Amino acid sequence: MSETGVIKCKAAVAWEQGKPLTIEDVEVAPPKVHEVRIKIVASGVCHTDQEYLTGKGMKFRPFPLVLGHEAAGIVESVGPEVTTFSPGDKVIPLFLPQCGECEQCLSPKTNLCRKNWANAQAGVMADGTSRISYKGQQVYQFLGVSSLSQYTVVADTSLAKIRSDAPLDKVCLLGCSVSTGYGAAINAAKVEENSSCAVFGLGAVGLAAIMGCKAAKANRIIGVDVDPEKFNKAKLFGATDCLNPKEHTNKTIQEVLLDMTNGGVDYALVCVGSPVVMTSAFESTRDGLGTCVIVGWSETDAISVKVEKILMGRTLKGTYFGDWKSVDGVPKLVDDYMNKKLKLDEFITNNLPLEKVNVAFEDMKNGKGICTVINLWPE
Amino acid sequence: MSETGVIKCKAAVAWEQGKPLTIEDVEVAPPKVHEVRIKIVASGVCHTDQEYLTGKGMKFRPFPLVLGHEAAGIVESVGPEVTTFSPGDKVIPLFLPQCGECEQCLSPKTNLCRKNWANAQAGVMADGTSRISYKGQQVYQFLGVSSLSQYTVVADTSLAKIRSDAPLDKVCLLGCSVSTGYGAAINAAKVEENSSCAVFGLGAVGLAAIMGCKAAKANRIIGVDVDPEKFNKAKLFGATDCLNPKEHTNKTIQEVLLDMTNGGVDYALVCVGSPVVMTSAFESTRDGLGTCVIVGWSETDAISVKVEKILMGRTLKGTYFGDWKSVDGVPKLVDDYMNKKLKLDEFITNNLPLEKVNVAFEDMKNGKGICTVINLWPE
Repeated sequence: MSETGVIKCKAAVAWEQGKPLTIEDVEVAPPKVHEVRIKIVASGVCHTDQEYLTGKGMKFRPFPLVLGHEAAGIVESVGPEVTTFSPGDKVIPLFLPQCGECEQCLSPKTNLCRKNWANAQAGVMADGTSRISYKGQQVYQFLGVSSLSQYTVVADTSLAKIRSDAPLDKVCLLGCSVSTGYGAAINAAKVEENSSCAVFGLGAVGLAAIMGCKAAKANRIIGVDVDPEKFNKAKLFGATDCLNPKEHTNKTIQEVLLDMTNGGVDYALVCVGSPVVMTSAFESTRDGLGTCVIVGWSETDAISVKVEKILMGRTLKGTYFGDWKSVDGVPKLVDDYMNKKLKLDEFITNNLPLEKVNVAFEDMKNGKGICTVINLWPE
Repeated sequence: MSETGVIKCKAAVAWEQGKPLTIEDVEVAPPKVHEVRIKIVASGVCHTDQEYLTGKGMKFRPFPLVLGHEAAGIVESVGPEVTTFSPGDKVIPLFLPQCGECEQCLSPKTNLCRKNWANAQAGVMADGTSRISYKGQQVYQFLGVSSLSQYTVVADTSLAKIRSDAPLDKVCLLGCSVSTGYGAAINAAKVEENSSCAVFGLGAVGLAAIMGCKAAKANRIIGVDVDPEKFNKAKLFGATDCLNPKEHTNKTIQEVLLDMTNGGVDYALVCVGSPVVMTSAFESTRDGLGTCVIVGWSETDAISVKVEKILMGRTLKGTYFGDWKSVDGVPKLVDDYMNKKLKLDEFITNNLPLEKVNVAFEDMKNGKGICTVINLWPE
C-alpha cells in the first residue's frame, strides 16, 4: 500500500450526450479501500463508448463522465487492503469484475460477476462516488473504468495483472473488443472443428470472432458486412468467404446463407447491435443444431424470434465479454498474444494522442479503419 | 411381408377447419414399400391436433384429414422391404421419424430427422399420396400418422417397436405429450440436481416436464398456470410450488418468480404456445446462466427477446419431441414406465370411445382434465 495525494492530469471529458469530448485538466483522487490507481498508457475506443455518448440503444446514464473501458496501464498506487497489486505492475482494467467470491464467480457456467455492478453502471465506485473530478465537480466513471484519462482508479476486483513484457499499446485491446469477439466464438458458441460459421459485422469484435472461429478450426467462416472494405481484413483473420447483403437484393441474407451452406450455418455470431441483423443471423442457422450467439450490445431493443425456428432445435444465446472470467482470462489471452497464438497488431489501424480522441470517434462512426489506439502520454 | 387388401374401418374425419369431426367408414390401403399398416388400439388427442383443426397459430394444411398423432397399436401388415416389423408387433407410431441414415440422425446433437418431412407436413406419405380414403376421395394423414382411425399406415422409419407386455391404452401417451415434456426437462434443458425450475402451462406436456425436473432432482419446481385446478396434479408430479398469474395483479409473473427465487430460475420450460408467455418465461430466468426451453408450438408467432436479457448470459432454445431420437427413445421410455420410473396412468383423466372424440376436443379446449385416451375398438 502506498499513500499519495490527488493527481492532476489530462482526461477526455464527455460533458453531454452527442457532443464531442473535450480535453480537461482533471483531478484523480487516491484509491480508497480495495481500489487501485492506474497510469493509463493506451486505450482503445469502442462502440459501447460511442453508443453511450450518442445515446443510441442505451438507457440514460449521468454526465459529465470520462469514457473508455478498453485499456492497459501501470499501477501507480494501491488503496488499503489491496493485496494482489503493487505499484509498477502492468495491468488491464476490467469493466466486468471477477470477485472470486460471489455465486456467479463460483459457478463454472457464467462470468457475470455482479460485484459493484449497479454502481459501475451508474458511473460510480463502490462507495457511491467517483474518483475523478473537474474543479470540484464529480466526473462519472464509465463502467467503473474511464480509461480516456491519464490516471484512473478501479476496484481491485476489476483489474487483471499481466506479464511485464507485454506491450501496453497492443494488449489494451484485450480489455474489451478482441477478448469479446474471440471468446464469443470459442467460449460461448463453442465452435467445433469442420463446422460452418457466419460472423455478422466486421469491426474489431467481428474480426476477433473470425479469429476465434479459425482457432477452433471451423472449415467455413463467412464474414457479413455492408462495407466491402472490411473484407480483406476479414480474410486476413480467417474468413473463407465474405458477403455484402447490399449485393443480394432479391434474397434476404439468411436465404443467401442457407443456400451457400446447404441448409444453414452451424454457428452465427452477431457482432453488431441491430436486432434486425440478430433475427437474420438466427434464421441463417441450420435447423436441428444451429446456435446463434448475440455479442452486439443494445439496452433497449428486442429481437424477434419465430417460435417455429426456435422449436426446430436452434439455440439463441448471449455473451458478455466473451464469457471470459475476466481476472483469470485476460492474462492468458496476453500470453496467447505473446506466444503468437492470437493477433492484435493487425486490428490497429491508427494511433492517436489523447488530444485527437474525437477523430477516433468520428472514424468509428464512419466505419473508417478497425481500432484506433489512443496513446495517453506524449512520446 | 404380408399382402392384404384394403381395410374398411371407422375413422374420425376432419372435413374442414373449425368443425367437429365426424365418424366415417374409411378405406385404408395396404402399405407400400417401407410402410407398415397398424391397428390403432388407443390414441390421445393433443393440442397440436386441436390447433390444426381450429387453425390457431398454424399454417394452412389440407382437408379432409384424419387427426391424431399420439397413439399405440399392433402391426397388421407390412409393405415391401420392411425388415424390422412383423404382424403382431406392438408399436407406437411417430410423427417425428428416425431414419438412422441422414445427417441429422447421424449427429448426436439433434433428433430432427427430416425423412419425408415435407410430405408428412403436407398430409401425405413418401409417394405423395395418402393411404386413407373416403368413397374414393383422398383423406390426408396428419403428420404422417392419423391415429384417430382404427387402421392407419405409417413409414417404417416413423414407428417404434415396443415390448409385448406394454399396455397400449397407457403407453400411447409416449407418442407425443409425455415424451415431449419429460424430454424437454432432461434432454433439452438438461436440468441439474438442486436447480430451480419453472414450468409454464400445466397440461400433459407441462406435467411431464415437471416429472422430468423431479427425475433430474431439481430442488425447486414451480408450476405456473391460470387454472388453479391443475395445481394438485402438478404437485403429484413433483411441483414444490404453484403460481397463478391472475393472483398477482401488481407484478408480472417474471417479477414474482425473480422474487421467489432470489434472482430467477435456472430453467424455465414453456409448455404453452403463447409468445407472450414465452417472453415472460425467458425473463424469469437467472442472469448469467438461465436457460429457457420453448416446448409449446406455434407456426406463425414470434417471441420478443430483449437484447439486454440475452446478453446477460441467458440461453433460449427449443425442443421438438423432447429431443428424443424417436425410434431409439420411445421403447426406453416404455421400459421406464414398466419399471415404474415414469408415471403415465396419472395423466389419464378420461377414456372415451372413438364416437365421443369431439367430447375430448371440447374438454381440451375448456381445460377440463389432462389426457383423454380414445379407445378405438369396442370392449
